[in-house]
Amino acid sequence: MCQLLGMNCNLPTDILFSFEGFRARGGATDEHTDGWGIGFFEGSGCRLFIDTKSSVNSPVAELVQNYPIHSLNVIAHIRKATQGKIELQNTHPFLRELWGKYWLFAHNGDLRNISLDSGSYQPVGDTDSERAFCLILNALRSQFDHEPPLKVLNAALNDISTSLGYNGTMNYLLSNGEFMFAYATDHLNYIVRRAPFTPAHLIDQDVTVDFRELTTPQDIVAVIATQPLTDNEEWTAVKPNELLLFQHGNVISF
Amino acid sequence: MCQLLGMNCNLPTDILFSFEGFRARGGATDEHTDGWGIGFFEGSGCRLFIDTKSSVNSPVAELVQNYPIHSLNVIAHIRKATQGKIELQNTHPFLRELWGKYWLFAHNGDLRNISLDSGSYQPVGDTDSERAFCLILNALRSQFDHEPPLKVLNAALNDISTSLGYNGTMNYLLSNGEFMFAYATDHLNYIVRRAPFTPAHLIDQDVTVDFRELTTPQDIVAVIATQPLTDNEEWTAVKPNELLLFQHGNVISF
Repeated sequence: MCQLLGMNCNLPTDILFSFEGFRARGGATDEHTDGWGIGFFEGSGCRLFIDTKSSVNSPVAELVQNYPIHSLNVIAHIRKATQGKIELQNTHPFLRELWGKYWLFAHNGDLRNISLDSGSYQPVGDTDSERAFCLILNALRSQFDHEPPLKVLNAALNDISTSLGYNGTMNYLLSNGEFMFAYATDHLNYIVRRAPFTPAHLIDQDVTVDFRELTTPQDIVAVIATQPLTDNEEWTAVKPNELLLFQHGNVISF
Repeated sequence: MCQLLGMNCNLPTDILFSFEGFRARGGATDEHTDGWGIGFFEGSGCRLFIDTKSSVNSPVAELVQNYPIHSLNVIAHIRKATQGKIELQNTHPFLRELWGKYWLFAHNGDLRNISLDSGSYQPVGDTDSERAFCLILNALRSQFDHEPPLKVLNAALNDISTSLGYNGTMNYLLSNGEFMFAYATDHLNYIVRRAPFTPAHLIDQDVTVDFRELTTPQDIVAVIATQPLTDNEEWTAVKPNELLLFQHGNVISF
């Protein structure tokens, strides 16, 4: 299995604090050592770092840890391989373009027997995760020539995800740089930080950050992770088979 | 305008020597300071580093310079913006998936009035280059459901490129990790290094490398660049409107 980390905000924010704790799970405090990756949206562009080394030992992770990239939407993943070898093409997040936008996808879980038609998107690697991503994009493209209104997209993705979920376990993060979907069959948690900010302490490292010193009263930052990253804040579990939509740091309901 | 750098080899090779000279043109020895990028194929996976900073000042370029990544196919680009702002989505190389493989593309030149149908591939940014890439992929996909034999692909790409070339100047590198196409309307040069190897001296830095110390007799390495990178070797100019195909370091003819 794997672990997921996502961030969705209303103002460009760096993910260094969360990444520090998350990265430790890739070989120090946990066993997810089969590669890792992180994608940052900047405008409509997307910067993707992937590596087959463990996040603890990766020079690329070291760069990310020391190079504050400010972004509205970030998705990261540390891998414990179940399907597919430890190779770059099997490393999350996966990136594709749909409707003239980049889409980033990372998955935790185990899916079986995903039947993929000969649609526009085909997997490059051998993971169930990339197959699921391609299935989702093929399904969306076949339904919509152009990006639909968010409410319509949300409903369509909910149907696709419910259907895919019958194939096993599937917790995923999906973003096009403007918003982020989070779907869970079993393990996914989130927190929305907003004023009044408080100090937060990592579970995986003895590191505390006082967000009062780093934020403005306007900041809203949602962090989504397979397991909570801090031990002095209240995280919310995503319900089984629930699709959440985060935009500008808030959970959007229709 | 911009500058291109490509490498195609028969054995995984690092590009550090060529990249050192090339990188200097992004702000030190030349004016291509509007971002840069480099993509490395590893197996069927692709690792893409892009940055809006100049290659001379980019922490990501510093990482690439100090982290030998061995690859059979590499494409790099330093940008001097003509069309499209200095933003991440306008930074080459561009990456898409076609027929279950990743394709990397970088362009030097200036194309006008590229008419793009509503095909599968749509540009995310504002450059003529990404439009051209999307047009090429849409044209290939509309002709072939699956990847055709290399000779057939070469002929199709030659037709598409000749037609696109009427829209201005277009020098490009295109690779799917197994081979590399190089097309030129005006500026592109290449060299194929093989045994017996000799020392090479960069134009842009006072750096010499003796390839006899770094290679085996089996190594074949093709390097393709907008302008030659060394001053003591003989580079070959790609002819106007010529499409070259490099595989395992060799130029392939049909």
